[in-house]
Amino acid sequence: MTKGALALLVHGGTENWSPRRWKDRFDDVCAGRPVLLLPNTSFDPADVHYAAVWKPQPGELAAFPNLRVIFNLGAGVDALMADSSLPDVPLVRVAVTDLTARMTEYVVLHVLMHHRQELYLRESQREKRWAPKSQWAAGAVTVGIMGLGTLGADAAGVLKRLGFRVAGWSRSPKVIDGVDCFHGEAQIDAFLRRTDILVCLLPLTPETRHILNRDAFRKLNRTSPLGAPVLINAGRGGLQNEDDILQCLDDGTLGGASLDVYATEPLPADSRFWTHPKVVLTPHNAADTDPDEISKYVAEQIARFEAGGALENVVDRGRGY
Amino acid sequence: MTKGALALLVHGGTENWSPRRWKDRFDDVCAGRPVLLLPNTSFDPADVHYAAVWKPQPGELAAFPNLRVIFNLGAGVDALMADSSLPDVPLVRVAVTDLTARMTEYVVLHVLMHHRQELYLRESQREKRWAPKSQWAAGAVTVGIMGLGTLGADAAGVLKRLGFRVAGWSRSPKVIDGVDCFHGEAQIDAFLRRTDILVCLLPLTPETRHILNRDAFRKLNRTSPLGAPVLINAGRGGLQNEDDILQCLDDGTLGGASLDVYATEPLPADSRFWTHPKVVLTPHNAADTDPDEISKYVAEQIARFEAGGALENVVDRGRGY
Repeated sequence: MTKGALALLVHGGTENWSPRRWKDRFDDVCAGRPVLLLPNTSFDPADVHYAAVWKPQPGELAAFPNLRVIFNLGAGVDALMADSSLPDVPLVRVAVTDLTARMTEYVVLHVLMHHRQELYLRESQREKRWAPKSQWAAGAVTVGIMGLGTLGADAAGVLKRLGFRVAGWSRSPKVIDGVDCFHGEAQIDAFLRRTDILVCLLPLTPETRHILNRDAFRKLNRTSPLGAPVLINAGRGGLQNEDDILQCLDDGTLGGASLDVYATEPLPADSRFWTHPKVVLTPHNAADTDPDEISKYVAEQIARFEAGGALENVVDRGRGY
Repeated sequence: MTKGALALLVHGGTENWSPRRWKDRFDDVCAGRPVLLLPNTSFDPADVHYAAVWKPQPGELAAFPNLRVIFNLGAGVDALMADSSLPDVPLVRVAVTDLTARMTEYVVLHVLMHHRQELYLRESQREKRWAPKSQWAAGAVTVGIMGLGTLGADAAGVLKRLGFRVAGWSRSPKVIDGVDCFHGEAQIDAFLRRTDILVCLLPLTPETRHILNRDAFRKLNRTSPLGAPVLINAGRGGLQNEDDILQCLDDGTLGGASLDVYATEPLPADSRFWTHPKVVLTPHNAADTDPDEISKYVAEQIARFEAGGALENVVDRGRGY
């Protein structure tokens, strides 16, 4: 082999995650480099220099002794980090413009749905009631974004443009124009207290597991113009305590929730989320992945790496994202 | 009287349109000027120099012989223009930032709802189906905005920021950065042919009545990534042929519709819009009016007018808006 092979390990859900679709895209962009769709027994694992993966099985990546870089085909690497046999080579997560734009669409859509009382308006339509309610101005509402990386910062920009007040919270200090930035354990209460619509885009790490719990929800703005504050989680299901969400929706601590991610996916049929009148549920498709964009991104990074350049978006294994 | 009186003629629907609420606001901002809430027989109509109105009865304004300016407390003046006895004084429509921001919220929300397949996703939730579908990128979708005044231009800016292609159509030529602008009868077909999501913000005039009809819908992009194109009307009900909308939704010419306005309001209980599975219906509240902002705007215009300055947003009676 003239170039080290790229192994594809894709175990996905939707049609976008068809392994064949990924192989076609990678064949297009990896000129001259063998692209191996696994499982595949007709090659020597020692020839594999790169792996592009989505939800590989634990241990699967340990089979390649000469692996140089692992590319995760999405933003969240929590599943990979849980693999104790993960080879100690750079792990890169994708951060393509397309994925950011799709997440911003999701965040803006769901913030506006709650801000503009869509749950009430759909109920009115079902009941054939012409019953307009007064609508608060965006400037009276604070959207609080947990996670101020590429995704959070981009969504914040559009929400500002729409007139919302925007606050943000992250592990380490950030400065974003027009956003009230908070960080660390010490400042999370101040962040929650001013928040009417809580948007969670955090990575899942041991520190963030179940960070969306009853204690946090009770700290949200109790005098919100929305009546009760709202939760939007498009990060990971492991960030949320699902019993707490349901109880807080039932007792009025939360006025509504938009959820894209769940502790167990697909969401089990007996979950109360399906039928709860205050829940707007999507099947983990907030930021759909575009194989065209991502395969190009990976090919470009490999080319730069082999030319001696630096990889982008390498995961810090200490902090877990 | 030291200052000419301001007569308030407000016949509204929602709590925002409580005449008393408007009088309180105008009393606050019209220092020293009598504010007369009509009907009111304790004053001389000759003392009235200004009228601030929402849906006055035809002929009501003709009762004031010394009227200098009429202020319409919303953006659309079609109801006033239909009053053949309307005094021949400047007619001003409000164009406050707040109203523009609210309309942009509505447009962005409903564009994103159709773009992100909300009708499909809510149906999936009701049926407890975990069934993600691939999602097209915003850059593959053209939003076509009819009406490129203050409202249309502002919504276009946010839609561009979200990555949509944006086209626009207006009566007279316009130039807006990043928007493919079309104008007049001669260019409407070219505008419609490229449009996947049609947003109507036109004023209602004799020329625009029923401009949203089957012929127009059939010219929309037949190879839309959405499957079938979508209509969003937040202008006036008189712009739309409602039978055509229903037939085009039924036969697949349109894939969905968001409607805020109707030929008859409140929407009659027997309208099929209430129950049509492809209709997202709101009770004419796309751009709710904020009495605080608007009373200030009117008071400022009166002060400028009395100091010899020019009025803003004077309606051109020839074109009707």
